[in-house]
Amino acid sequence: MTKALGYAAKHSFSRLKPLEFDRPEPKANEVQIDVLYCGVCHSDIHQVENDWGNTVYPCMPGHEIVGRVSAAGASVSRHNMGDLVGVGCMIDSCRQCEPCREGDEHHCEGHNSWLATYNGPMKPAAQTEDGVNTYAEDNTYGGYSNVIVVPEDFVLKVPESLPIEAAAPILCAGVTTYSPLKHWGVKAGDKVGIVGLGGLGNMAVKLAVAMGADVTVFTTDKDKVEPGKALGASRVVIEGDKDAYKELELSFDFILSTIPEKHKVDPFITLLKRNATYCAVGALDQIPGYNNQELIMHRRTLAGSLIGSIAETQEVLDFCAEKGVAPDVQVIDIQDINSAYKRVKNEDVRFRYVIDMASLKREMEEAA
Amino acid sequence: MTKALGYAAKHSFSRLKPLEFDRPEPKANEVQIDVLYCGVCHSDIHQVENDWGNTVYPCMPGHEIVGRVSAAGASVSRHNMGDLVGVGCMIDSCRQCEPCREGDEHHCEGHNSWLATYNGPMKPAAQTEDGVNTYAEDNTYGGYSNVIVVPEDFVLKVPESLPIEAAAPILCAGVTTYSPLKHWGVKAGDKVGIVGLGGLGNMAVKLAVAMGADVTVFTTDKDKVEPGKALGASRVVIEGDKDAYKELELSFDFILSTIPEKHKVDPFITLLKRNATYCAVGALDQIPGYNNQELIMHRRTLAGSLIGSIAETQEVLDFCAEKGVAPDVQVIDIQDINSAYKRVKNEDVRFRYVIDMASLKREMEEAA
Repeated sequence: MTKALGYAAKHSFSRLKPLEFDRPEPKANEVQIDVLYCGVCHSDIHQVENDWGNTVYPCMPGHEIVGRVSAAGASVSRHNMGDLVGVGCMIDSCRQCEPCREGDEHHCEGHNSWLATYNGPMKPAAQTEDGVNTYAEDNTYGGYSNVIVVPEDFVLKVPESLPIEAAAPILCAGVTTYSPLKHWGVKAGDKVGIVGLGGLGNMAVKLAVAMGADVTVFTTDKDKVEPGKALGASRVVIEGDKDAYKELELSFDFILSTIPEKHKVDPFITLLKRNATYCAVGALDQIPGYNNQELIMHRRTLAGSLIGSIAETQEVLDFCAEKGVAPDVQVIDIQDINSAYKRVKNEDVRFRYVIDMASLKREMEEAA
Repeated sequence: MTKALGYAAKHSFSRLKPLEFDRPEPKANEVQIDVLYCGVCHSDIHQVENDWGNTVYPCMPGHEIVGRVSAAGASVSRHNMGDLVGVGCMIDSCRQCEPCREGDEHHCEGHNSWLATYNGPMKPAAQTEDGVNTYAEDNTYGGYSNVIVVPEDFVLKVPESLPIEAAAPILCAGVTTYSPLKHWGVKAGDKVGIVGLGGLGNMAVKLAVAMGADVTVFTTDKDKVEPGKALGASRVVIEGDKDAYKELELSFDFILSTIPEKHKVDPFITLLKRNATYCAVGALDQIPGYNNQELIMHRRTLAGSLIGSIAETQEVLDFCAEKGVAPDVQVIDIQDINSAYKRVKNEDVRFRYVIDMASLKREMEEAA
């Protein structure tokens, strides 16, 4: 066991506070990582506040982790001591179901689905018929900590050319937007719409532009017109601008919606070309009714997409390094995490907060 | 001009009655066809009764036409005198837009969209900005007539091995279900759901079974369990059977819905495998809201599909001949068309009515 320190919430209404805990030694196939930076994802806040009703406490979030390998089990072959590595939303999966065998671990249909980097299995024992948790872990502790231990197959290689702190959000926000852009075949010259310009939207625009697409941003916020263009969008449309929507009918090869809540899809369906797809990655909600005639007449589709596979996560890290793409981040000390949460909730940010774990180490040294 | 006779409605509330009219001589690229049989499609009734608000009167329906070539323009090269041929929902398209150039005439985005076999262009002059109809035909007369003239590219070859009267419904019901089954890659061994067992559903089951798929039928009607199995379905599920739905979760490669009106899609989404599609071809309506989380978690999609291309129409005719597939039809005289409409509206049929045009010829001879 390794004595470890992290920041965790004890209840849905409590602030994050320091929590001492034990990280187990790495097993034969596992890697121990000293955490350097960890991104702050909006879902961290949802989980801490139990918005999805499935939070296990204490809750120690963090699934945008960058660090260096500090120990490795006997059979580890993919990573070496000192390697710069990353961990995203998953640290394990059943490895046996059809999606796992086909490299879609993020769609694991095993007994407890995939094992999340924090808060345990996606399908906890209570949601299974036999009440069993095959991972034997009810509550995993995430990257708001100084050290983490992860099976090597779920550890990504972070290219040294990426700004380390900016690499962190690629592991969730990056792959969540990269995966659908790739899956639906976005290529140079395609006309792509990105709906919403928060953390995901920001990343989506950068990735689509780097893929050579002609990007149009849709936002409700007039203050995001210039920032959207600065990211490389050729056009920023204010949602509800009827003239713009009329002009853009039947013109998009793909629309990626990052709106994090329920929203009307009809205005976007009419913008799709024949055979094109509207994919909503952020709305884990009921979508209002839609006009099926608009799907029928041009063989359009509506879709959803969830984070991305381990292979895609490696791909997007390599793609970002190759293309010089990095999320816009603001580095904070872990002691400021609660005020950062407040600003995220108030939509008071346009970049991604990333925790510099040196601040946690200082706290440990002062306490020692 | 050729003196012709057909059955047409003069108003939305009138019965179909004989109407004498002139068919033009075939132009250089056109074929004249003596109509032998014409299927009765539910959309014929919608059009006659102006349910879509776009009917031009007199309305002479019929877009499931089988006949023999009786004259041809000077440049016609694809068809010969006496050939058994078919005409489906379209008789022309702009031939210049991207969909037309790529062989998707049924998604024509030209000035007036495609030219329907009856009731004129899909996008009539009144719906265009400049008020122009590039086809110069406001109201085409369909196959409820003794003769029709059609550009040769929109005339299909009907294999002589097909039962002639049963070939007619393949030209609409057949291609409408064949096109999505092919587009979404249904192949031998796939698990396919067919929702609804009317005219389209009947055809869809036969085609999917002939493709080697394992077919499950969903119906609200207990009396359709045995007929569904007789068509080759391995299972017939009564809609709302919660145990069956639970058992079938995450199991379908493709679900084709032929429900001709708005309906809840959520119960079917959960039955789709990862990456699978629910395609509704019949509901030209507002679909109620759906749970996007169910799309996201398994990257599922919702889609629509419209009839099929000319190439697909030829494909499904050839496929049916090769596999010995034919719609279940009941042959009627054209003088009985109004009572047939009544029975279709009362959902009093499980087969397709097909008009034997010999009955019209007799009427013409008696009048002469």
